[in-house]
Amino acid sequence: MHPNDPSLRSFVEVAADSDFPIQNLPYGVISTQDDRRLRVAVAIGDHVLDLGMMEDAGLLPRVSAKPVFRTGSINALMANGAYGIGTVRRKISELLRHDSPTLRDNEALAKRALIPMKNVKLHRPVDVPGYTDFYSSREHATNVGTMFRGKDNALQENWLHIPIGYNGRASTVVVSGTPVIRPQGQLKAAGESMPTFGPSKRLDIELEMGAIVGRATEMGHIMDVDEAQYSIFGFALFNDWSARDIQQWEYVPLGPFQGKAFASTLGAWIVTKEALEPFAVHGPKQDPEPLPYLRQDKPHNYDIRLEVELKPANATRGTIISVSNFKYMYWSSAQQLAHHSSSGCSMSVGDLIGSGTISGPDKGSYGSMLELSWGGKEPIELVEGGTRTFLEDGDTVTLRGYAQGDGYRIGFGEASGQILPAKVK
Amino acid sequence: MHPNDPSLRSFVEVAADSDFPIQNLPYGVISTQDDRRLRVAVAIGDHVLDLGMMEDAGLLPRVSAKPVFRTGSINALMANGAYGIGTVRRKISELLRHDSPTLRDNEALAKRALIPMKNVKLHRPVDVPGYTDFYSSREHATNVGTMFRGKDNALQENWLHIPIGYNGRASTVVVSGTPVIRPQGQLKAAGESMPTFGPSKRLDIELEMGAIVGRATEMGHIMDVDEAQYSIFGFALFNDWSARDIQQWEYVPLGPFQGKAFASTLGAWIVTKEALEPFAVHGPKQDPEPLPYLRQDKPHNYDIRLEVELKPANATRGTIISVSNFKYMYWSSAQQLAHHSSSGCSMSVGDLIGSGTISGPDKGSYGSMLELSWGGKEPIELVEGGTRTFLEDGDTVTLRGYAQGDGYRIGFGEASGQILPAKVK
Repeated sequence: MHPNDPSLRSFVEVAADSDFPIQNLPYGVISTQDDRRLRVAVAIGDHVLDLGMMEDAGLLPRVSAKPVFRTGSINALMANGAYGIGTVRRKISELLRHDSPTLRDNEALAKRALIPMKNVKLHRPVDVPGYTDFYSSREHATNVGTMFRGKDNALQENWLHIPIGYNGRASTVVVSGTPVIRPQGQLKAAGESMPTFGPSKRLDIELEMGAIVGRATEMGHIMDVDEAQYSIFGFALFNDWSARDIQQWEYVPLGPFQGKAFASTLGAWIVTKEALEPFAVHGPKQDPEPLPYLRQDKPHNYDIRLEVELKPANATRGTIISVSNFKYMYWSSAQQLAHHSSSGCSMSVGDLIGSGTISGPDKGSYGSMLELSWGGKEPIELVEGGTRTFLEDGDTVTLRGYAQGDGYRIGFGEASGQILPAKVK
Repeated sequence: MHPNDPSLRSFVEVAADSDFPIQNLPYGVISTQDDRRLRVAVAIGDHVLDLGMMEDAGLLPRVSAKPVFRTGSINALMANGAYGIGTVRRKISELLRHDSPTLRDNEALAKRALIPMKNVKLHRPVDVPGYTDFYSSREHATNVGTMFRGKDNALQENWLHIPIGYNGRASTVVVSGTPVIRPQGQLKAAGESMPTFGPSKRLDIELEMGAIVGRATEMGHIMDVDEAQYSIFGFALFNDWSARDIQQWEYVPLGPFQGKAFASTLGAWIVTKEALEPFAVHGPKQDPEPLPYLRQDKPHNYDIRLEVELKPANATRGTIISVSNFKYMYWSSAQQLAHHSSSGCSMSVGDLIGSGTISGPDKGSYGSMLELSWGGKEPIELVEGGTRTFLEDGDTVTLRGYAQGDGYRIGFGEASGQILPAKVK
């Protein structure tokens, strides 16, 4: 049976609202108290299956001369290409089925290889050679443009023709759970004549999805949208933390730099493109029609419900400040990647393509606090009292997301980070 | 004697105008017809000294548990820190001295380890995890600003306060000699209502120096200018090829992307900061005084003469289209790097910091064809006839540079690339 078949069940218990049924099998990188070596795992219910151990036991197909799961990332798996990726997923699915005895009835192995998720430490699942961030939600671009330039000039002239993007900083892409130190930088409020250096006062989030490139291309090679889509291995939750005040002062004319360089949080689980196939949908109609190198006829958006929770340091409950959906993107990840290669730019295995902030049509679905608080003018109410315009020290922001199938969910876990105070000397 | 001592001489012949006297000892990565494995070497006269072989022979200090020169980059050497870097340079200097018999009189070894430069293939000397490009020549920023916004608004408001920079694309940083395929992209001429996709018609160079970061920092750590200067391992020539028409249409509001992503050419030789110490000079006076985190009292600019040669495909002689100097930079590489860390952005060993286009005060010293031809309006004359505004297919551009000492030069070799026609489908 196909690993996406909705009727599949695992012998590992999986709650109905779990992110990780047997139809998902997202990849992560783990270590445990007993064994601090990094290895690749898949999530199943509230357990993980240690693929390093399964590989050692000879239960996984050998897709390359060297083991690919006893490493600190999924890059080796991806680098071995689509054949290996598909073969491995089918085999893992088969091993976890309720009617498959190999692992189920091997008590000693099952006990060691199936580890409760609460006992594992999750590491960044991908080595990220290049991180590129886009700006492809029409609602987000319109909201930001309206605040900065007024309603009539909201979208820049190029926006409907180009998936606008810029190079991000890969060295600070961290895994969910990593604390985020409030950045310092040059700030210059309107009306002040000179900038000052200090902690950001407008620290924000960006609700994004990250596409992981699974296939390298040579310099000079231009991918069309079909090839770009084929090159995407999977997706993860992604929060591109942004210091709006630093960004505001620095970004003319070369774009965001230190205002976004201090941290970007990637979810710990990479959901494969294959697992998301049942949830592929067409995006919004593109008008004007894109240039030929950006045309797509297949559905390359995904119906993934996304939410943002904000929880102050002393709160008992967090507040869901936004509910959005990945399907709102005007430009698909495949179009973004095709554009990225259009100059001949080479892609590397593990490259991270940030979707850009995912804002929906109404206020409850905006993907940044800049939009939710409309530039700080309309404070966001918290469920236990108090308000926020931008983030305060101690706040924890958690992104979550899932695609809802018939009786199961393909979920992403979470991308979470707590704000620590700036280190002022 | 100190390896910079002007009185040092090598037993290897070095011409008076050679870039590579014993006072230089820049690092590169080589392979040969006989031995295709990559290894690190230093240049001396018109030879290279194969450090892999010297390491095998036990003639170099062991600075780490593993060999550091039988690798495809200088990253392992740099990662071992300043002690190792200094120790190795002193030892190499000693081994190459005219009065040092160890290598000189070991004919068999000297014959194998000293390889004529014409017999080696030079590879990219550094693994570049992150490439960041700055915009720090006041003359360049003023020229470009004047062309785009008029003389009275030439410098943006933030320029005198921030070393303006942006993240570049590391995957296409290539070594000197790598051909550059003319990029394609979205073009929209003034007056046209829709963009088209096609080969760039305004393909340009940017004369830059690249600083190589030799020392990693943790996320959250902010370097002052002294620490940033300490973290720089060395410098190389750098040409940040730019498609002005692609850039012009795409860059609002997030900065350059595909207009600069197709290729950036790094010189094959990394000259150590130590070798350049005698040529350190103060930069232009900075007014207004920079914020405290950017202040420097030591001389962090370098007096390095730079030139750009353009040679059409069928020409017998190239034309020197610009003579500039690295000393003109308004913001030093150390200030750029300090700013880069100011948000808490972590740095990695091998990170490349592009200075930005280095333009001098007069027209013959401008570092881009955009400036030399003043936006394409004043064609550049070539010595064998013909003119250029931007680059044509077949053109080869070669950057060269050296610091002139008393009777010797600390040179950088060259950063060269030939333009190949676009691959139009």
